[in-house]
Order: sequence, then C-alpha cells, then structure tokens
Amino acid sequence: MNFCAALPLPLARVLRDTADVTQRYKLIIEYDGTPFVGWQRQANGRGVQQVIAEAIHRFCGETVTVYGAGRTDTGVHALGQVAHIDLDTPTDADTVRDALNHHLKPDPVAILTVCAAPARFDARFSATQRHYLYRIINRRAPLTVDIHRAWHVPVALDAARMHAAAQLLTGHHDFTTFRAAQCQAASPVKTLDALDVERAGESVLVRARARSFLHHQVRSLVGTLKAVGEGRTSPHAARLALDARDRSRCGPVAPAHGLYLTHIDYG
Amino acid sequence: MNFCAALPLPLARVLRDTADVTQRYKLIIEYDGTPFVGWQRQANGRGVQQVIAEAIHRFCGETVTVYGAGRTDTGVHALGQVAHIDLDTPTDADTVRDALNHHLKPDPVAILTVCAAPARFDARFSATQRHYLYRIINRRAPLTVDIHRAWHVPVALDAARMHAAAQLLTGHHDFTTFRAAQCQAASPVKTLDALDVERAGESVLVRARARSFLHHQVRSLVGTLKAVGEGRTSPHAARLALDARDRSRCGPVAPAHGLYLTHIDYG
Repeated sequence: MNFCAALPLPLARVLRDTADVTQRYKLIIEYDGTPFVGWQRQANGRGVQQVIAEAIHRFCGETVTVYGAGRTDTGVHALGQVAHIDLDTPTDADTVRDALNHHLKPDPVAILTVCAAPARFDARFSATQRHYLYRIINRRAPLTVDIHRAWHVPVALDAARMHAAAQLLTGHHDFTTFRAAQCQAASPVKTLDALDVERAGESVLVRARARSFLHHQVRSLVGTLKAVGEGRTSPHAARLALDARDRSRCGPVAPAHGLYLTHIDYG
Repeated sequence: MNFCAALPLPLARVLRDTADVTQRYKLIIEYDGTPFVGWQRQANGRGVQQVIAEAIHRFCGETVTVYGAGRTDTGVHALGQVAHIDLDTPTDADTVRDALNHHLKPDPVAILTVCAAPARFDARFSATQRHYLYRIINRRAPLTVDIHRAWHVPVALDAARMHAAAQLLTGHHDFTTFRAAQCQAASPVKTLDALDVERAGESVLVRARARSFLHHQVRSLVGTLKAVGEGRTSPHAARLALDARDRSRCGPVAPAHGLYLTHIDYG
C-alpha cells in the first residue's frame, strides 16, 4: 500500500495538485504521559493527540485529525499507542516518521514507526486486542529513577495471591464495579482476556489484555488487586465485588503513572 | 554489630551523654543523577553527598561526613552506591533509613538499606568490586520515558562486535587512553575484571566490573565500543588504542546519563 514511497517530493506536489492521492498512515507512538492531560485535548492542558497534529502541521502544512486506538488518561504512558492519519501530500513513510520526530521536540512523544495503510484501516475500530502493563515498585524506600514511571507501594505485596484473585476477574462480565463514573461506553459488559500478576525482584507487574476496556478499568482492577496483595481483602472478596456490579465495592483506583499502553494487535 | 538496635531513644540519649557510643552505619543508596553535580559537592551545584549530610542534620542534629564508595559524575545514576556514616546518637538502623528518606524529600535520593557496621568498615577502602551498567537505546526514534536514563544512539550497533572488542580491553593494563585528563588516581594501571556487551531488544547493555576505576574510564570505554559497534573502527583498533596509552586515541566519551553504579561488593 506504500505506493507513494518512491515519489520524490516535487512530483508528489504535482500529483497533489492534479489528483486525489490522499494516503492513510499507521503510526506507532511512544510517550511519557507525565506532562500531558492524556491522549485527548482537554480544557486544562495539552493532549498527545494535539501535540502530534501540531507537529504534522509544522511538517507539511496540513491540518489533520490524529485518530488514536485508545484514550489514555492524564499521566498514563504509552510504549505502543497506535494512530492513523490521512495526508494529501504523498510522502515516504520513513520521512513522515523522521519529520514528525523532529517537529515533536522537545515534547516526550516519539513516532516509533510509520507505514502506509489501506483506507479501511482504522486505529480504533480495527484493533483486536489492547495490551496494558501496570508497574508497581514494592519496597520501603521511595522511588528515584522510577519516579512518575511506577506506583510506589511500601507495604509488602503477595504477588501470587494477587495473581490468584486476578484469575477470578477474567472472562466475560459486567464490569460496573471497575468502571469510572464518567465512562462513556455503551455497555459495562466486556471480555477481559487476561490479567496476570508476577513479581520480578522488587517490581510487581500486572499485565491486562482485552479487545477493549472501560474507562479506568485497568487502574480499578489494580487497585483491588493491591488490597488483595496486602492481605486487606481476599481473592474471593474481589470476585464478590465484581459480581456485585457496584462501583462502591471497588478498591481505591491505582494512580495513572504506573500504567503503560504497551501494544495493540490488529486482525 | 547492631548493638543499638533495641535501645529506645531516651535511653540512647542518656548513653550519649555518659559514654562514647559512636556507631558506624553502612548505607545503600539509589539516586537519579540528573539534578546533581555528582556525588561530591562542587562550586556550581549540589552533590548527593551533601544532600544526605543535610538530611542527617535535619534528622538528628549531627553534622557528619558521608563517605561514599565511589564518586559519580554529574548526571550519573546509582542503583546501589554505598556510604558509611558515624552517629553519636545510637539509633535503630531501620529508623535511620526511614528518617533519612523522610528528610531527603523531594530530592530523588533514596536510602535502600541501613545496617550497623563495625568501625573498621570503610565504604571506599573496604570495597572489593565495583559494578557499573551503561544503557544504550539503539533505535531511530528519540527517547521519551527513558530520557535522561539512557544514551540514544540512532545508528545501528553490532553488539556482538562490541562484545568482541570489549574482551580485548579486559585485564591488567595501563588505561591512560581511557582516563580523563583531570583523573587524580596515582596510577593509570588498573585491572578491568569484566566488560560485557549484550543486546536486549532495542537496548544495548554494557556491564563493567573492577576493584576500582579511573575517572571517566567506563564512559571512555563505552564511547570506543560504540565506534566499534557502528563499524567505524575495529575490535583490533580498539585494542591498539589501549596499547598506545594515548588519551587522543579514545573515542568520544559516552554521556553521563546512560551510566549507573549498580552495586559494590565487600570482602
């Protein structure tokens, strides 16, 4: 589909003036969520989506919408967010990547790869699986090199107990308990394909995978798993909280800065 | 040696007023080197050593010197720096740790562990091995979550070739080529016990181990290994540079922000 790749730019400009050669591109994006209000623009600050749209405008003068696969919240990071854009100026995909990275400086947003995509490709609706990682650092001492990159939990966590609880929360369920009040999804019923907890030294890593998630679902699940890991509640009680379909039964939501959108699968 | 551990503080104060009960403590310290001028205080900014001494003063009123195992440069990180301090007020080791962490906020310095140590223990002179890690991220796109935490090298590196060169640089040598002009060591002759390079995805990790290092030695070695990895020089040429004992034969020194003092062994 990368039919524009070999066109030198002057010829591309001629084509643009003479024919509709709009090209869709798939972008894989990494960002540090700390300075942003999340993926989407908000009244109170800059969103990653807007920052990329501004870089595109500086690069080629086009005003486009950047369609992301998933909306991340304020402070949430991405190692493999996916978006699609349409450009009227046919441009080599690697040139788009390098030019956007140039114009994104000094914001902590990087375009890892760009490839031409068919017009039917939609970053959001074509996605088949979304993968998240939640990083907990479980130690007494505060964080230094990992500050804003992980949740610091000083109380000892039993990761095996957390994993056992997680296995009771996977599958096709009404996730009302683990859904933010402001969630805009049409239904609270989702299929959580995997929720795994493992310890790696002083880190406790929670990995979640589903076709799609509710607003705050991963952070709500992690908050409840943390209570299980501390021994304040049991795996069985976590399952009863799910079955209650009652938001008030959710543990405190885990903070945004431990969460990473790691990658997205397409059909 | 933790003979003060069980003493409640008022009794400790009585002892302090009646006898010489100076206690030495071994501290294991983690820090983000970004905001500091290095371990040692400099005219142009704050050093980690000074920041810890100030926290000790705020905690117990004592003015002490914090003796570190190794001096890290501006921007260099530590995951396991070691220091010793002497306190006149006998205090439970875990209390020292928690109190220092409280008083170190908001600086990105954490005391991981504190234990009582015999008076003969010296963080610098008792050390038998120092371990460093150098993190390179080898990809086209700029860094986001790892900014200030790794060296971004966009040109493809051959890690196996770097490792082959590294094996020609280990052992007992005159390291004048890989020594900063301002190095204060009495002799440029050192034994480099290990220098290993491995690729892990887009990361290239260099691990160095020796009883002691010259000033800028690890970063100088990594700079030369990077030139080997890019194909700009050969493993054999790197060895000839070592043998030349000529600082001008060293490749550009790798930046500080990729370097971590990971841990220190004691006999």
